[in-house]
Amino acid sequence: MGKTLIEAIQQAEGASLTAAIERPGSSLIGTDAGELAGVGKLGVQVVGDLAQVLDDFDVLIDFTHPTSTLVNLELCRDAGKAMVIGTTGFSEEEKQTIAAAAERVPIVFAPNFSVGVNLTLKLLDMAARVMGDEADIEIIEAHHRHKVDAPSGTALRMGEVVADALGRNLQEVAVYGREGQTGARDRNTIGFATVRAGDVVGDHTVLFATEGERVEITHKVSSRMTFAKGAVRSAVWLGERRSGLFDMQDVLSLRD
Amino acid sequence: MGKTLIEAIQQAEGASLTAAIERPGSSLIGTDAGELAGVGKLGVQVVGDLAQVLDDFDVLIDFTHPTSTLVNLELCRDAGKAMVIGTTGFSEEEKQTIAAAAERVPIVFAPNFSVGVNLTLKLLDMAARVMGDEADIEIIEAHHRHKVDAPSGTALRMGEVVADALGRNLQEVAVYGREGQTGARDRNTIGFATVRAGDVVGDHTVLFATEGERVEITHKVSSRMTFAKGAVRSAVWLGERRSGLFDMQDVLSLRD
Amino acid sequence: MGKTLIEAIQQAEGASLTAAIERPGSSLIGTDAGELAGVGKLGVQVVGDLAQVLDDFDVLIDFTHPTSTLVNLELCRDAGKAMVIGTTGFSEEEKQTIAAAAERVPIVFAPNFSVGVNLTLKLLDMAARVMGDEADIEIIEAHHRHKVDAPSGTALRMGEVVADALGRNLQEVAVYGREGQTGARDRNTIGFATVRAGDVVGDHTVLFATEGERVEITHKVSSRMTFAKGAVRSAVWLGERRSGLFDMQDVLSLRD
Amino acid sequence: MGKTLIEAIQQAEGASLTAAIERPGSSLIGTDAGELAGVGKLGVQVVGDLAQVLDDFDVLIDFTHPTSTLVNLELCRDAGKAMVIGTTGFSEEEKQTIAAAAERVPIVFAPNFSVGVNLTLKLLDMAARVMGDEADIEIIEAHHRHKVDAPSGTALRMGEVVADALGRNLQEVAVYGREGQTGARDRNTIGFATVRAGDVVGDHTVLFATEGERVEITHKVSSRMTFAKGAVRSAVWLGERRSGLFDMQDVLSLRD
Repeated sequence: MGKTLIEAIQQAEGASLTAAIERPGSSLIGTDAGELAGVGKLGVQVVGDLAQVLDDFDVLIDFTHPTSTLVNLELCRDAGKAMVIGTTGFSEEEKQTIAAAAERVPIVFAPNFSVGVNLTLKLLDMAARVMGDEADIEIIEAHHRHKVDAPSGTALRMGEVVADALGRNLQEVAVYGREGQTGARDRNTIGFATVRAGDVVGDHTVLFATEGERVEITHKVSSRMTFAKGAVRSAVWLGERRSGLFDMQDVLSLRD
Repeated sequence: MGKTLIEAIQQAEGASLTAAIERPGSSLIGTDAGELAGVGKLGVQVVGDLAQVLDDFDVLIDFTHPTSTLVNLELCRDAGKAMVIGTTGFSEEEKQTIAAAAERVPIVFAPNFSVGVNLTLKLLDMAARVMGDEADIEIIEAHHRHKVDAPSGTALRMGEVVADALGRNLQEVAVYGREGQTGARDRNTIGFATVRAGDVVGDHTVLFATEGERVEITHKVSSRMTFAKGAVRSAVWLGERRSGLFDMQDVLSLRD
Repeated sequence: MGKTLIEAIQQAEGASLTAAIERPGSSLIGTDAGELAGVGKLGVQVVGDLAQVLDDFDVLIDFTHPTSTLVNLELCRDAGKAMVIGTTGFSEEEKQTIAAAAERVPIVFAPNFSVGVNLTLKLLDMAARVMGDEADIEIIEAHHRHKVDAPSGTALRMGEVVADALGRNLQEVAVYGREGQTGARDRNTIGFATVRAGDVVGDHTVLFATEGERVEITHKVSSRMTFAKGAVRSAVWLGERRSGLFDMQDVLSLRD
Repeated sequence: MGKTLIEAIQQAEGASLTAAIERPGSSLIGTDAGELAGVGKLGVQVVGDLAQVLDDFDVLIDFTHPTSTLVNLELCRDAGKAMVIGTTGFSEEEKQTIAAAAERVPIVFAPNFSVGVNLTLKLLDMAARVMGDEADIEIIEAHHRHKVDAPSGTALRMGEVVADALGRNLQEVAVYGREGQTGARDRNTIGFATVRAGDVVGDHTVLFATEGERVEITHKVSSRMTFAKGAVRSAVWLGERRSGLFDMQDVLSLRD
């Protein structure tokens, strides 16, 4: 993801790469970040410790692991630096820590940085409000063979958006598989169907079906660049904020 | 369509069939409307002249032809009866006549009464505003082998909604087919792809594609009941109006 | 299904309706079968007992329930009448009984009488042989909200065809749902994803995906007429057989 | 394509990279082929002249230009080396030269090395034979915004396969766009619908639709690896041949 982010920064207006951090001990430390990403020499040396470059950037884009993100969070909070956090897998308590830091520095923290996914969440909210009470709702997602969990975080987020719009609790209404004598479908359920195959980067479809018609809202990712571009768009957007916890709905002005 | 409307009225809450009109001279005049529709005897005799039953109903649902709709419009306007008009093919002048009548009685006049299609138009407007300037937009529609025109009226309407949201003129940007050396795609165009096959009732997909991701919004009709249900929903909704010209966006509260 | 079969017989070349049987005690006994099916008077009275009309037909088309099919099977076997059996839900032992009867009379016994489904099974066999060892295989099916079992019998049959072509045992390799930490996909598995929504008559897609490409084979039913037409085509085909147990692959000459 | 081929060879069973040739004068000559392809050091130095490494390999995979392929062809023919030719753009006469060389060494020469596309062509032939006379046939293809011609060569090839199977002449029956009053569909036509959008690498769907059901056969490419893997599979398959001109239908055992 680091290489893709560097590429996205190079393409974006209003952003430039001023620091690049690898995990301590990596053999890549000391190389030129631009050459590493295949976009040509940028004069930015990869370092193994965020503290070394704290004076060199305005916004940290962090797509790592919870443990290192939390270390970075503390450094950024104390140094007054903004953050874009794309790391996933935080506990509820860790999310509280992020929220607390956001009282002092501005942070965009989103489960998915794709413009299309965030648009899709908004479309789903609207569709659920208009058709949801009469329709059967099913979420179908497909990902590559290497994905180790199911359904995808994005599929679950879609389910939550739909459930919220309809005043349902996703935990209670989700159905994750069907086998054997299932009985007729309960209108209140939200079904998930999961496909794992080949190199599918990430497809999601939400289906609203009544007797007589259906509306389908589909999102397909074809490259990781999508997420990197959204993260960089967020970083630029953060330039105008002083503090606060935001997500992509804020960045894209999709909040009601 | 008459039979389907009767069936939809029977299923709806807040609506009941109180009159049924066939064209003058039809052999069906005098039969029971319910038996005709296969929903059992309803005690409503089919008549050949709207004037005969003007005192028997609150809202006239009219899916006929422009000539007879205009005759019915005059009768309803003078008798203070609401109308749901699903007839298509009016001239601009005739549409003015409908608008004028709506100053005295409430009228829902819509090119398409499907809840799903009208929701889809709203979703398209939103998607175009968020992604349209960066995305390639294509409209793919499929209908049964008997359809004699292309693209479908609904596909064109979708194109207009998208073009309007982006400040483009559909007439100038629409592309209806591609053959031979077309050159690279112009970002401003809106492409239409038309499939004619089998018994497809009506499928429409609008695609917004960028480098890296795409959003697709799809509507599929599986039965005419869809349109009848929307017309009956409109009739019930009209019960609370005194006058005015409305369409399904009003009925579904999809106006901004 | 009875009405649809009568309609299909009327449309077919080489077939005509000569008897029609309802369950004993039905109020429809004594009515004209053609009028019942909405195709006009045929002069064939509906009866409540197969034994009454055993001399009147060449082939019995039976889409009922296992119990009554087995009664009919005995009557047909003894009277030397051919059968087309579309009933589902037989035990292994009951299937043996059908096979035994087929030693004396010709029987087409198929889980699905659609020409398209049977073509699809053949296409799947070929696709599995060419791509199956390198591809991830997933079967996605969608049916209406009233369907009480999952996956559909047709989806399972598709899985068997693919597993057979690859020398796998479907029982061992089928995955019917994915939830939580599933780990990376095992190449040998065959995944099933099940959608239940609205009035979908029956959609099936089998996906063969490798790194770099995918082939999808899809079948969609839009009306029950599909099955009735296949059953009548089978009945006509049986006219030339003396005994034996057949399925639609035989009728369509799709056996190797 | 060279890098992708090296990667594909590394992944394949029964194949290993033993030589790598660049155009004379390239700055890459002398580098390690594995490092160049990003798969780690392989101990195979890139050379600028095929003659230098003629003793080092069994099969040459050649995706270059007609001129250099013809030079390589002569060298391989004389040295008794097999070839996989993925180069396109040969004249009829040059194709004769390839055929002549194939009398002495085994050669796979194919317009498209994707296993999936070649399988799809075979599936289309079979589907057309079983359903084609009763079905409406439509070919829908989507490619990225930079593609300058329409429909794609692969879509046209699919149309030819279907038309051949049905004894029709594609030139006479192809319909490339529909606009305005088209009239009802003529059963004998084969329709093409073309989508140009975003970064779609290449999607093709062929639809066979009757009253009541449809069969869809879809192929989607997601990366060039597809073509490289087919070329390597061909090279392994050639190991067992002594001479002859083959294409992917042979490699995949899809000839009747």
